[in-house]
Amino acid sequence: MKTFLQLLSDRYAATKSLLCVGLDPDLSLLPEVVIATANPQLTFNKAIIDATHDLVCAYKPQSAFYEEAGEAGHEALVQTVKYIHEKYPGIPVILDAKRADIGSTSESYATAAFDKIGADAITLNPYLGQDALEPFLRREEKGCIVLVHTSNPGADEFQNVSVDGRPMWQFVLETVATKWNTKGNCLAVMGATYPEQLAQARTIAPEMVFLVPGIGAQGGDAQATVTVGRSADGFGLIVNSSRGIIFADSSKDFALGARAAAQETLKSLA
Amino acid sequence: MKTFLQLLSDRYAATKSLLCVGLDPDLSLLPEVVIATANPQLTFNKAIIDATHDLVCAYKPQSAFYEEAGEAGHEALVQTVKYIHEKYPGIPVILDAKRADIGSTSESYATAAFDKIGADAITLNPYLGQDALEPFLRREEKGCIVLVHTSNPGADEFQNVSVDGRPMWQFVLETVATKWNTKGNCLAVMGATYPEQLAQARTIAPEMVFLVPGIGAQGGDAQATVTVGRSADGFGLIVNSSRGIIFADSSKDFALGARAAAQETLKSLA
Repeated sequence: MKTFLQLLSDRYAATKSLLCVGLDPDLSLLPEVVIATANPQLTFNKAIIDATHDLVCAYKPQSAFYEEAGEAGHEALVQTVKYIHEKYPGIPVILDAKRADIGSTSESYATAAFDKIGADAITLNPYLGQDALEPFLRREEKGCIVLVHTSNPGADEFQNVSVDGRPMWQFVLETVATKWNTKGNCLAVMGATYPEQLAQARTIAPEMVFLVPGIGAQGGDAQATVTVGRSADGFGLIVNSSRGIIFADSSKDFALGARAAAQETLKSLA
Repeated sequence: MKTFLQLLSDRYAATKSLLCVGLDPDLSLLPEVVIATANPQLTFNKAIIDATHDLVCAYKPQSAFYEEAGEAGHEALVQTVKYIHEKYPGIPVILDAKRADIGSTSESYATAAFDKIGADAITLNPYLGQDALEPFLRREEKGCIVLVHTSNPGADEFQNVSVDGRPMWQFVLETVATKWNTKGNCLAVMGATYPEQLAQARTIAPEMVFLVPGIGAQGGDAQATVTVGRSADGFGLIVNSSRGIIFADSSKDFALGARAAAQETLKSLA
């Protein structure tokens, strides 16, 4: 079985795409045409996936929107991952859950994300330290994508405090790259809204793959992201856009609108 | 409607108990007698709650164990919170979920935890900063329990780095106490396995309520926790024990065993 990073690398080779589409089916934003279906989130996701699958290197469902929908949301999430894996094999799925807990509890989170939901990778919060995340880190076939510098306006409150002369986020990135990555399965989150930090991160971890949220709705510049963020082989980035693509059009032709928006975004990443 | 901290204060006054029982129905540890029931986690929780309700200041379900059980787990979690609120009104419920995401996503997490699941308080991870957690912090009737110093052996990897001459966790605690707590609804997690840090935290935030995990199975000393951690009024602590109580006895009399273990723990907190 291929690891997450092997799947991603094959996908880069096949599509030349750095684009990840965020599957964030916010109940309050779903187009009217899907609301009446048995599971609106699942109906919506399937249409978005069918319309964009050839344009993406990965999909990234955001756990919160499924949790908000309760049992139907859980069903939508599980079935969405299954749909991607069965209909479009080779496209890796990242569960955006930003989990972190102590060991025995992280064990249950890892089982839920990787074995029950079937995700190929997960986003993780570093604050508790390496031992807390071991149940994720030791799964070498899965991607462990650690929050380093996030895309929100207030990210610097703790991420930019000075630790022995460099910002906290750099210390976190160094630690993940040199200590946590013993299985070669670690990636980092670097928000597109901080291009200067993204450029510095590329120097600190030349070959690490970065998940980059924040282009589109959050205001990050796609072209700048690619220019400063890509690795020497021209890849090394998973550039995510969620609502800028999936909610580009709220009519009954929402999937066509999403495809057009994905194509536009892809061009801006060239 | 009472706020979380008012509920807790009334509960302290009525019971003199600092004990919180963690409702962590790990599927691999449930007693045989509940396995055959329609929803084993819910059956188990109801029995534990009926056996311990007069001894506790709060209950704390850990989200991971319900997520691992999929849709049945979600149902168990929702029904457990409802059961406590309806049968034993006045006992606050803390959802241990350690959530944190950017604003729009945190919005969905807050709705899920507070409005769909019905929790009175939630644990939160500080790494993303205040703006990311605003959807939780602005809910003044709910408790926002921020991770400051966790109970795991490797907690110090990032929590103890030096920030302007004091450890990161102290900077986080100061920030939560002086900046984030504008609605008076913030609490902090301080692991029982670090009693020296707990004593320092009490000096930094004399009146803040601390959620203290780590006694029992994790090795934290209950008596030391109370001695150094309580506030001037003798309360100010929510001391959690999960598996040390709920899995004390795996026979068909598991609930009686849990009650005995809760009584023992309560004595050690006197």
